[in-house]
Amino acid sequence: MRMLINVPETVVADGLRGLAAAHPDLTVDVENRVIVRRDAPVAGQVALVSGGGSGHEPLHGGFVGPGMLSAACPGEVFTSPVPDQMARAAAAVDSGAGVLFIVKNYTGDVLNFDMAAELAEDEGVQVAKVLVNDDVAVTDSLYTAGRRGTGATLFVEKIAGAAAAEGQPLERVESIGRQVNENSRSFGVALSACTTPAKGSPTFELPDGELELGIGIHGEPGRERRPMMTSGEIADFAVNAIVEDMPPRNPVLALVNGMGATPLLELYGFNAEVQRALRERGVAVARTLVGNYVTSLDMAGASVTLCQADEELLRLWDAPVKTPALRWGM
Amino acid sequence: MRMLINVPETVVADGLRGLAAAHPDLTVDVENRVIVRRDAPVAGQVALVSGGGSGHEPLHGGFVGPGMLSAACPGEVFTSPVPDQMARAAAAVDSGAGVLFIVKNYTGDVLNFDMAAELAEDEGVQVAKVLVNDDVAVTDSLYTAGRRGTGATLFVEKIAGAAAAEGQPLERVESIGRQVNENSRSFGVALSACTTPAKGSPTFELPDGELELGIGIHGEPGRERRPMMTSGEIADFAVNAIVEDMPPRNPVLALVNGMGATPLLELYGFNAEVQRALRERGVAVARTLVGNYVTSLDMAGASVTLCQADEELLRLWDAPVKTPALRWGM
Repeated sequence: MRMLINVPETVVADGLRGLAAAHPDLTVDVENRVIVRRDAPVAGQVALVSGGGSGHEPLHGGFVGPGMLSAACPGEVFTSPVPDQMARAAAAVDSGAGVLFIVKNYTGDVLNFDMAAELAEDEGVQVAKVLVNDDVAVTDSLYTAGRRGTGATLFVEKIAGAAAAEGQPLERVESIGRQVNENSRSFGVALSACTTPAKGSPTFELPDGELELGIGIHGEPGRERRPMMTSGEIADFAVNAIVEDMPPRNPVLALVNGMGATPLLELYGFNAEVQRALRERGVAVARTLVGNYVTSLDMAGASVTLCQADEELLRLWDAPVKTPALRWGM
Repeated sequence: MRMLINVPETVVADGLRGLAAAHPDLTVDVENRVIVRRDAPVAGQVALVSGGGSGHEPLHGGFVGPGMLSAACPGEVFTSPVPDQMARAAAAVDSGAGVLFIVKNYTGDVLNFDMAAELAEDEGVQVAKVLVNDDVAVTDSLYTAGRRGTGATLFVEKIAGAAAAEGQPLERVESIGRQVNENSRSFGVALSACTTPAKGSPTFELPDGELELGIGIHGEPGRERRPMMTSGEIADFAVNAIVEDMPPRNPVLALVNGMGATPLLELYGFNAEVQRALRERGVAVARTLVGNYVTSLDMAGASVTLCQADEELLRLWDAPVKTPALRWGM
């Protein structure tokens, strides 16, 4: 167990204390586990609230700030937050313009956000929801009925967040969020398992020299296991899986995402192969983001997310954002 | 060997191709291994050139752009770039206002930047140099005579880059860079070794349950090896090592830097302990940056860098920057 922690029980709280210390623009309620942009509620703007298990940082807390999320609710590692967190967040950020919940499609998250919506609505907060389910690798898994929500979460949060920042109404922010999810597909591979602090040993056994194709972000099983492949072969496999599911209309936003432990040098090299694979299939790329954004603790590996983006989605993608993990134009 | 690569021989070139594809603001000469901001040379501004072995990404290529480096020269993994790269970079970015070389204190880098300076001066480029040697862990090592250059490189490149962007003259940009280095100290720990693509096996053996204190960024030996410590104990050890070497004058810039494979959740938790350790020693923190900035491939671990910053250095730190890895205000 090679972890930079105190004890497993305080990993999430310690992380929140450290987030608060580094980012004075955020208000972090460590006890209740709610991260809120300091200037919330923002008059006239729809508020965005997301959350999910910890261990995927910078998702979601690193995406809180102007132009993206209003609040995030971290659960225990790989465990859904509880409804009270999201209800508390909604109350803190609602300006009267309503709140959009952005929910990754895992059974616990879906149930708990549903309960939170009821709680918030009982308090007079208007709530809409976008479910993110972009992972083409598997339908149904250890944690999900239907497709899992992975990398597209970043696109939904950024683009819906930009629409909210422009003062667009709740139904419009919701429909943009849904459109982004429907236009997005992801595929990931693991070169190693990850180790949760509580368990202290890898979530599954992946022998050296093998990789798992179609992995999720919790160490749940993928689509198939194979002997190690080159970066180029992996890029072809991932891009094929995506474009077979969603035949390309141009152009796309591309996220080449690290699972946590793969060096940035390798991620950029993988991006070169993803771009080649897309070029060979006639898919034009409008924007590319490379880095560790939707992670799985110390898992080695990467995922590819593509989002078909029209002019309006591109414009919203390019709009200013100011969060710990994604920042431009401010 | 769990690497997302094609073959070890093309890792650096593949990474450069991927960098170019993701960042249209950069001009990347893959063959000659020079990364240049697209709008260089910028009239009236001193240009900053850095470089070093690959495997530390985003350092240095991820720091090229307005407000920071004008160009970066990546060598092979953990191997100095050759003088021709830096001379070529200097010629590409010099506006006539001169070029500042920012050199981490490793024997190969120092020699090769010296030769590059001669080459550039022969071509009529005025060159100044700042040597970065902030690591308090060891004097002399496998790669160094004197102290190693590690996390302070980011502070020197950002702050001197801001001074250059304001149009300050070469001697002033150089003296600011030197001041930042002299005001900075670092200390790092490894929870695992790293694996270079060429070698394919860990650079040293670190048994599970042990950590190496005072590690560099190349898997070279540290100060001592101990049984695993808590995040809080590590923070105390690192902060002690730094403040014993540089008694605190307030306030400091703090970089809590991941070595590559440590999850961001753990890094933020470590930051909480670093902030506590500083508070207990009466050190005020003006700004904190948490993330993977000066890495060592897939090494697990973290480093702490503190820079004593007066009002002027803080102002330059806060100035706008637009690079792949560090961006604000633009």
